[in-house]
Amino acid sequence: MSLAEELGERKIIEIILGCLDQMPNMPVPFGDDVSAVDIGNEKLAVIKTDMLVGKTDVPPSMNLWQAARKAVVMNISDLAAKGVKPIALLASIGIPRGFVKKDIEQIGKGLNAGAREYNAYVLGGDTNEASDLVISCTAFGIVEKRYLMKRSGAKPDDLVAVTGVFGKTSSGLKILLKSLTAPPEMRKELVNAVLMPQARLKEGLALAQTHAVTASIDSSDGLAWSLHEISRASNVGFVIDNLAVAREVEEFAKIHDFDPVELSLYGGEEYEIVVTVKPELWEKAKKATEQVGASLTKIGQVTEEKTLLLRTKERIIPIEARGWEHFKTA
Amino acid sequence: MSLAEELGERKIIEIILGCLDQMPNMPVPFGDDVSAVDIGNEKLAVIKTDMLVGKTDVPPSMNLWQAARKAVVMNISDLAAKGVKPIALLASIGIPRGFVKKDIEQIGKGLNAGAREYNAYVLGGDTNEASDLVISCTAFGIVEKRYLMKRSGAKPDDLVAVTGVFGKTSSGLKILLKSLTAPPEMRKELVNAVLMPQARLKEGLALAQTHAVTASIDSSDGLAWSLHEISRASNVGFVIDNLAVAREVEEFAKIHDFDPVELSLYGGEEYEIVVTVKPELWEKAKKATEQVGASLTKIGQVTEEKTLLLRTKERIIPIEARGWEHFKTA
Repeated sequence: MSLAEELGERKIIEIILGCLDQMPNMPVPFGDDVSAVDIGNEKLAVIKTDMLVGKTDVPPSMNLWQAARKAVVMNISDLAAKGVKPIALLASIGIPRGFVKKDIEQIGKGLNAGAREYNAYVLGGDTNEASDLVISCTAFGIVEKRYLMKRSGAKPDDLVAVTGVFGKTSSGLKILLKSLTAPPEMRKELVNAVLMPQARLKEGLALAQTHAVTASIDSSDGLAWSLHEISRASNVGFVIDNLAVAREVEEFAKIHDFDPVELSLYGGEEYEIVVTVKPELWEKAKKATEQVGASLTKIGQVTEEKTLLLRTKERIIPIEARGWEHFKTA
Repeated sequence: MSLAEELGERKIIEIILGCLDQMPNMPVPFGDDVSAVDIGNEKLAVIKTDMLVGKTDVPPSMNLWQAARKAVVMNISDLAAKGVKPIALLASIGIPRGFVKKDIEQIGKGLNAGAREYNAYVLGGDTNEASDLVISCTAFGIVEKRYLMKRSGAKPDDLVAVTGVFGKTSSGLKILLKSLTAPPEMRKELVNAVLMPQARLKEGLALAQTHAVTASIDSSDGLAWSLHEISRASNVGFVIDNLAVAREVEEFAKIHDFDPVELSLYGGEEYEIVVTVKPELWEKAKKATEQVGASLTKIGQVTEEKTLLLRTKERIIPIEARGWEHFKTA
């Protein structure tokens, strides 16, 4: 019989979802980035939980303050991708024996910092003894139904766009995990992407207001995986012709002879928002992000044919359904 | 510097709370059983997270289905004690290597069973690899502000009451952990209290409707600890003169020469609701629980003097501020 580490995270989630009775009239289906409950007055209560485990999610040189902050940010990122303003967070914390008061303070301060950056508050939680450091955060927010951006609405000819550039965290992780070298400025930028991830909240909220977005997801499991998720949920395909690779990633790849496309497509723990946009509302969407001091970059378009392709000057290659996955990558 | 296991769970929570900015106008203060957000129309969104860790919360002979169900029930119990109907649950699951598909199905089915027993649904969650089994559930519900029962409103001369009898889980745990003997029927009853805990939801909802309750808490950390929590939050004391010891616990204590008072006061993982009730509304409160097929038992009264005393025919003894505590009891 298959072991958990062979099944992989997604198969495990599928098995669990298969055991659950489905709430009638679920406003957001199983498997989207968040869960939601209709609270009347055309509003949804939105909740999301995501667990950070020390041994698989905390790379060397990430301190406890950063780990706790990241545990908050990764949940806020999911709300951001749905167009939902986070209000409150809870944290369930598993603490290994041997932690001292200062360690616990670092966790408390990191949780608070992560929440306050996005104008939310940590309201409570729970602690337990555990063998690993475990920080399981729950984010809560309210959204008007008409603003919620799901994974499932992409239509052929919609444009595909992202809120930033890709490949920094996978490059930064290589530096941290494999002790690879990089010039100081580049190293700082790439490592910082790992240690201090940012959720694209203002972008998500601005985009939701435009009603230009037909599908949305965050890129926490990698850009390729996010595109495949939208593909599955919306029953469409993609041609990506302007992969938004970070400048530093191009340079880092050159130094170490990596493929920058690989670094950008199949990384993960990178919290950009990936959206599909109605072509006639593209300018509106772009302006909305610019008005909040951010940007939106067109990287391709939605196709009727359910294939995912990357088109560069030199080649057309399939975008594979792989990316960051717990169990399998650990 | 003190280690986590010396600090204990409550000191750790205190340290973390000390690091958090407080949300203005919090409808429920830090440290109550649940957290809440004002969502307008005189309603609160109520959220609670509580983590079950295999090595400290799952006794031998509790199977994975039961463990997952318990992870749900312990969160529902907190909502029940506040008078809040659970609507939805999320589960973050840490899965050890070596678990097989059947194990994961048992977890999924146990989560679903726990939720459906209380007419709620599991909407989603997250899985990760972890060294321990970790099931961190979040329960969500909506309540009208005027029905919420906090820890902080007990007044001198209020009556103290409970929704059931005590000592079964501490006795059952002794049977499971120390292989103590008991006659078959007794054993079944006591062990069942550990393996299949019940949240007092219908009782909590019925009591909330009466407006008779001035303070409420569940007894998940033991009856003594719950009384101390109300004492701290309400600035009152207690005289308990009718400790509700389960009949089976009296008998079990006789067989093994245990103190039934010790088993009933200082146990834990026992999910009764402990309330203080306005004396003039006592009959109303009692009837409300009876109308839902349950019961409410008066065990003592609230005093102005901030001491907690147990009065029996033979003696008056202090009720100590101890009970079930992670880290310290592990």
